[in-house]
Amino acid sequence: MTLDEARARDAADPLRHHRDGFALPAGTIYLDGNSLGALPRAAVAVMHDAVTRQWGERLIRSWNEADWIGAPQRIGDKIARVVGAKDGEVIVADSTSINIFKLLTALTAQRPEATHILSESGNFPTDVHIAAGAARAAGIDLRLVTRADIAGAIADDTAALLLTHVHYKSGARYDMAALTTAARATSVPVIWDLSHSAGAVPLDLAAAGAEYAVGCGYKYLNGGPGAPAFVYVARERQAALRPALQGWMGDARPFAFEDAYEPAPGMGRMLIGTAPVLSLLALECGVDAMLAADRDALWAKSQELFDMLTGLMAERCPDFTLVTPTDAERRGSHASFAHADAWPINRALIDAQVIGDFRAPDVLRLGLTPLYTSFEDVWRAVDVLADIMANETWRKPEYAVRSAVT
Amino acid sequence: MTLDEARARDAADPLRHHRDGFALPAGTIYLDGNSLGALPRAAVAVMHDAVTRQWGERLIRSWNEADWIGAPQRIGDKIARVVGAKDGEVIVADSTSINIFKLLTALTAQRPEATHILSESGNFPTDVHIAAGAARAAGIDLRLVTRADIAGAIADDTAALLLTHVHYKSGARYDMAALTTAARATSVPVIWDLSHSAGAVPLDLAAAGAEYAVGCGYKYLNGGPGAPAFVYVARERQAALRPALQGWMGDARPFAFEDAYEPAPGMGRMLIGTAPVLSLLALECGVDAMLAADRDALWAKSQELFDMLTGLMAERCPDFTLVTPTDAERRGSHASFAHADAWPINRALIDAQVIGDFRAPDVLRLGLTPLYTSFEDVWRAVDVLADIMANETWRKPEYAVRSAVT
Repeated sequence: MTLDEARARDAADPLRHHRDGFALPAGTIYLDGNSLGALPRAAVAVMHDAVTRQWGERLIRSWNEADWIGAPQRIGDKIARVVGAKDGEVIVADSTSINIFKLLTALTAQRPEATHILSESGNFPTDVHIAAGAARAAGIDLRLVTRADIAGAIADDTAALLLTHVHYKSGARYDMAALTTAARATSVPVIWDLSHSAGAVPLDLAAAGAEYAVGCGYKYLNGGPGAPAFVYVARERQAALRPALQGWMGDARPFAFEDAYEPAPGMGRMLIGTAPVLSLLALECGVDAMLAADRDALWAKSQELFDMLTGLMAERCPDFTLVTPTDAERRGSHASFAHADAWPINRALIDAQVIGDFRAPDVLRLGLTPLYTSFEDVWRAVDVLADIMANETWRKPEYAVRSAVT
Repeated sequence: MTLDEARARDAADPLRHHRDGFALPAGTIYLDGNSLGALPRAAVAVMHDAVTRQWGERLIRSWNEADWIGAPQRIGDKIARVVGAKDGEVIVADSTSINIFKLLTALTAQRPEATHILSESGNFPTDVHIAAGAARAAGIDLRLVTRADIAGAIADDTAALLLTHVHYKSGARYDMAALTTAARATSVPVIWDLSHSAGAVPLDLAAAGAEYAVGCGYKYLNGGPGAPAFVYVARERQAALRPALQGWMGDARPFAFEDAYEPAPGMGRMLIGTAPVLSLLALECGVDAMLAADRDALWAKSQELFDMLTGLMAERCPDFTLVTPTDAERRGSHASFAHADAWPINRALIDAQVIGDFRAPDVLRLGLTPLYTSFEDVWRAVDVLADIMANETWRKPEYAVRSAVT
């Protein structure tokens, strides 16, 4: 594979015009859209209007006029199309962490005889931390088992199973339908964290029988830094859900200003306080950009980018060990490579304008976001990395210094 | 009081130049800054930079370079100066509702013998709803008593007392120091909701002996629609707090990616998921605008505006009944007037470019935000209202129609 061949792939890419919809900085190769999605160009004007006209000129009137009040449902319905859910099954609210907490507290309350919440050791930390807090509040345990032992650990006294569909580090993907079916045999509800799969891999929550899910707005959905998250509940499970967190925006009549709480019908009850409108409106631009592209084409391109990346890495950077499954059905849209010096190597890459990220203790993680990642990006990234390895540029002392955020 | 006299008051107002820092629409009289603060002009450029450069060009690097990661603490320290707290005692996170939940779950866990959470009937609904959910989760009751009965209802078996310092509707203000002292006699912790007092009235949490508080970013702090909220815990109470909600951003080492949760030192543990950065940066502009003004001058002007408003209302709109206490020490910075037809009257006012708000069932609420409310604003607002009442303009059928948000 040569640079010219990579360029030829870009020229033939049916998604290539979507890249123009993103404001990618010249000279930078961005392979970290799985951590913070790139800026959709449309968001610049949308945010300017939101700040200057909606907030500045129309002020409080925008709650009705600009339908700020309906944004969580409106954007939720759009995300539903990305994840294979129906209108009214997804709502945008708070953070992924807080949405997990809502679901866990509601589900543990439904199963008072249960003794533990089940999850995976090495799951994304916030999932585990939230589950530990929810378990403590419910007076039950958190049981963490290895990935291989999950299916066998589902038991009658499991309050809920919390799994991340695509692992943030390894990129390994669970078989959602199989695990959901296995859990249903014991009536154990499963919460799927879709943070690394929404917008990354084909999702059909309805077909998989998934009943509960959460996900992140700022990764593949390109919603901006710290964008609000989403939560999904299958329609038939919504009415019974009573999260411990219940606030006025989730009340059936918030502007009646009454003491008694009555959960709003459907997903409305998953709202708590007033949503951060500016961040919400940025998220909507990202979701719109995702919906404009064909889902099958995105996944096909993700696979081609992955195969090209892993092929070039094996050829030109053989010191790295691929930790992501090669079977496309068993992984997400990022590729992770282990190397004992992954931290300074990643710093050297960033210095050379190739942005991936490091995940402790030894992983270089490269995100493939087919909306805007080009084949040339991948070719150049490996070329730069091969140069860094050959010249040992990464040994510069400054690259050993740790930053606040990795 | 004539219009000329009102203008003369503006000309002599030491705070008058602060109004230029806000993008108020020409022709509109805005008396709803207690619901959504006006746009600080500085926020336009800040938000453009946040979107186009920090997100668009610098991408993930901005977490370190632009110190997105430190924003909750940095803005919290600024808000601390508004509320009379010390550095490290305030952090910006989530919504007011969720912050109340964090405090209530942590405090009820500390008092396992307690039988109830205590609050005021008619408190802002989200406070009551959150308290009901936290009580249910802890297996205890929520006890609501009238305002007059609060002090007498504090008992040894009260888990926590949750009060809103300035009432959202009546504007009545509690004596924070007296109630905190009364609660301390029985070791009952008090959580103060400062949503209608932070930036509105002089606050000195330290002097009042207040240990726990929350507050809103989008009202008097001018943080933008749905701006993130803040939470305060006196330094000596921080180490013992373990909210049921615990997420990775509140971990001592979030980027170590470990299963075990260890609360960050100090207020860091009150962070849960990733903060909505765009909304956070807008909030910082609002807080900066507040800090640029002299606190004593703000409160002095608030009182003058209140006296002028209530004087003019008594004179020109005698059908309205003032429900806000006239004693300045016993109220906030808004004035509420009861009238059986407050809904359509408020709609008629909005149509005439005078923006206040309606609070069910019968209150017209007018916010006085001395950073940008002028004496002329108040004079003109009453003049418009007197005209609406004299001509019965409010009886138009379209004004009876209810909107989604009041």
